[in-house]
Amino acid sequence: MGLENLNTRTLPAIEKELKRIVDRLDEPNTRQFHEMLAYHMGWSSEGIVAEATGKRIRPLLVLLTFAASRRISGKTDTDGVGWELALPAAACIELIHNFSLVHDDIQDNSEMRRGRLTVWKKWDMPQAVNVGDALFILAHFALLEIQNAFPLEKAKQAGLIINEACLALSCGQFMDISYEKRNDLAVEDYWPMISGKTAALFSACTQLGATLAGADESTWESYRNFGHYLGLAFQVHDDYLGIWGDSALTGKSTESDLVAGKKTLPILYGLAKNRLFAKRWAEGPIQSDEVRNLSEQLAIEGVKLFTQEATDQMTDLAIQSLRAAEPQGEAGEALFELANLLLSRNT
Amino acid sequence: MGLENLNTRTLPAIEKELKRIVDRLDEPNTRQFHEMLAYHMGWSSEGIVAEATGKRIRPLLVLLTFAASRRISGKTDTDGVGWELALPAAACIELIHNFSLVHDDIQDNSEMRRGRLTVWKKWDMPQAVNVGDALFILAHFALLEIQNAFPLEKAKQAGLIINEACLALSCGQFMDISYEKRNDLAVEDYWPMISGKTAALFSACTQLGATLAGADESTWESYRNFGHYLGLAFQVHDDYLGIWGDSALTGKSTESDLVAGKKTLPILYGLAKNRLFAKRWAEGPIQSDEVRNLSEQLAIEGVKLFTQEATDQMTDLAIQSLRAAEPQGEAGEALFELANLLLSRNT
Repeated sequence: MGLENLNTRTLPAIEKELKRIVDRLDEPNTRQFHEMLAYHMGWSSEGIVAEATGKRIRPLLVLLTFAASRRISGKTDTDGVGWELALPAAACIELIHNFSLVHDDIQDNSEMRRGRLTVWKKWDMPQAVNVGDALFILAHFALLEIQNAFPLEKAKQAGLIINEACLALSCGQFMDISYEKRNDLAVEDYWPMISGKTAALFSACTQLGATLAGADESTWESYRNFGHYLGLAFQVHDDYLGIWGDSALTGKSTESDLVAGKKTLPILYGLAKNRLFAKRWAEGPIQSDEVRNLSEQLAIEGVKLFTQEATDQMTDLAIQSLRAAEPQGEAGEALFELANLLLSRNT
Repeated sequence: MGLENLNTRTLPAIEKELKRIVDRLDEPNTRQFHEMLAYHMGWSSEGIVAEATGKRIRPLLVLLTFAASRRISGKTDTDGVGWELALPAAACIELIHNFSLVHDDIQDNSEMRRGRLTVWKKWDMPQAVNVGDALFILAHFALLEIQNAFPLEKAKQAGLIINEACLALSCGQFMDISYEKRNDLAVEDYWPMISGKTAALFSACTQLGATLAGADESTWESYRNFGHYLGLAFQVHDDYLGIWGDSALTGKSTESDLVAGKKTLPILYGLAKNRLFAKRWAEGPIQSDEVRNLSEQLAIEGVKLFTQEATDQMTDLAIQSLRAAEPQGEAGEALFELANLLLSRNT
C-alpha cells in the first residue's frame, strides 16, 4: 500500500528531475545528441513500450531510504515523508545506472534493451560510447546540486559514496568481461564480481538516503547492508531469468547468458557440478538451438534450485538488515514492499 | 628558462599524484585492470617510448596558472611559487583528458597512440570502454580532494568548471562523430566542434588555476580566454600535423585525417575552395596511396597557408589574453614559454 501510494508522487518527480538534468543537452548544436539520451531514458515516442524507462528502482531506493530514516533522526516535513530534498541524489544514481547500461550493451554486444534497440545498435558504437559518457557527466551535475540542499559535510560524504560505488562498478565490469575468457573460475569468484557490478550501486542508494537523512552509524550500516544484499539478490535473480526467464517478458533474449558464455552463478555452479552440462560447455560455444535442452539439463543437475535458494538467502539477509535499520512510516513500509516486489519479478 | 626550471619539480609531482590516484585499482582482484590504466598512462615498461606519458600540458597549465595568479592575489608560499596545493586539480584534468583519449581511440578506430598500441587494440574494445570509464571515475576522486585543500565556495566552483568542461567535451565529440557522415558542412561549423572537443578542457585548466588562486573577475576572464584560444590554436595545429606532419614524429599515421574522412579545418577549407581537392573528395573515400598528392594539392590551393595563419591568429589571441591576465613571477614567464612551445611543436 505504502509503495503504490508513494509511487504516484515519487515516480513523476524522479522523471521530471531526470529530464531537467538531461535537458542541458537540448541546444541547437546537440539536438540529435539530446535525442539519443532521451531515447535511452525511454522518453522518446519512437518504438515506445511500457517498460522503456526501466523501473527506476534505484532512485526509489534513495528516496524511500531518505524518508524512512529521516523520521528516526527527527526531521519530518509538514507534507509527510519529505523525500523531495533527496531528488538530485536519486537522479544522480539513476543517471549512473543508465551510463553503465549504455556501455554494458556495447561491451556485451546486446541488441535489445527494455524491448527496444540499444543505443549502439541504433546510432553505432562511437556515438553510443559518447551517450554513456554524457549520462555519466550529467550524473555529476546532479551530484553538485546535492551541495546546494545539504550541509558541506554530508555533501562530501555523498560524493565519496558515489565515487566509491562507481569505481566498484567499473571493477566489477572488468571482472565480468575478463571472466568470459577464463576457464579456471569457481563459484566463489562470482561474488566479488557482482558485489561490484550490481550490489555497489544498490548499496550506494541506501547509503546516500541514510547519510543525507542524518541516520546514526548503526542505522546507516544496516541500510548499507540492506542495499548490498538486495543488490546481490537482484543480480542472482537476474542470472536466473537469464536462463529460465521468458524472453518475451524480459525484452531481451534469454539465450544470451548461455550463448554468450557469461559466467553467471548458475553457469559457474553447473560447471562445478562437472556433469553433462559441464561436459557440453567444455566442447565449445553453445548454439541457440541447444538452449532449451541445456537449461533443462541444468535444472536436472540441481542448478535451478540452487540459484533460487541463493536468491532466497540473499533476500533474507536483505530483509534482516532492513528490519535492523528500523525504517519508519509509510516509506519504511514501502521499502519492505519494494524488496519483496523486486525478488518476485519475472522481468 | 622559467618553464624548464619549474618542470624539473612540477612534472615529477604531477606523475606522483596521478600514480597515487590510479593506485586505487592496485588490488588483488583488479591487478590486470590497474595494468591497463598504467599502460595507457605510460607507466608500464612494455614498449615504452619517450613520449608514452604524453606531454602533461594540461596539468602544467593548471599549476602554472595557479602559481602565476596566486601572486596577484597576494598569496605566495615561502618556497616560491606554491603550486603544490593545485596538484589534485591538475591530476583531475589530466585523468579526464586521458579518459577522453581512450574512448576517442575506440571511436576513431585508431590503432596507435604515443608510439604504442592503443588500449582497445591491446585488450579489445569492451575492456577499453571500461578503462576510459575508470579513468573518468578516478578523476572525480581527485576532484573530491580539492575540497580538502580549498574553501567550500572555491571547491564548488571547481566542480562546476570541470563538469561544464566535460559536458562540452562530450558535445564536441558528438559533433566530430556526426560530421563524418555530413556533406553539408561549412568552415564555420568547425569552431563549435573544436571549442568543445579541445578548447573546453584547456580553458578549464586556466579557469581552475585562477579560481583556486582567488584571482579577481577580470583576471579570471583573461585566463579563461587564454586557455580557450590556446586550445583552439592547439587543435588547428593538430589538424595541420594530421595532414602535413611527419608520421614518425607524431607516432600515428598522418594519413588518418584524409583517409578517415575527418572534417578538420584544412579539409573543410579545401572543400569550400571547390577545386581539385574537393572534386576528388566528392568521388569517395581517399586511399592511402593518394595522401601525398592530395596533401600537396591542398597546399597548392592555399589550404596549408590558411591553416598556418589560423593557428597564428588563435595564438595571437591567446598571447593577448595571457598578457591581460598579467601572470606573475617565474610561473608567469613559464606560461608564455609553454604557449610558444606548444605552437611550434612538430609532434
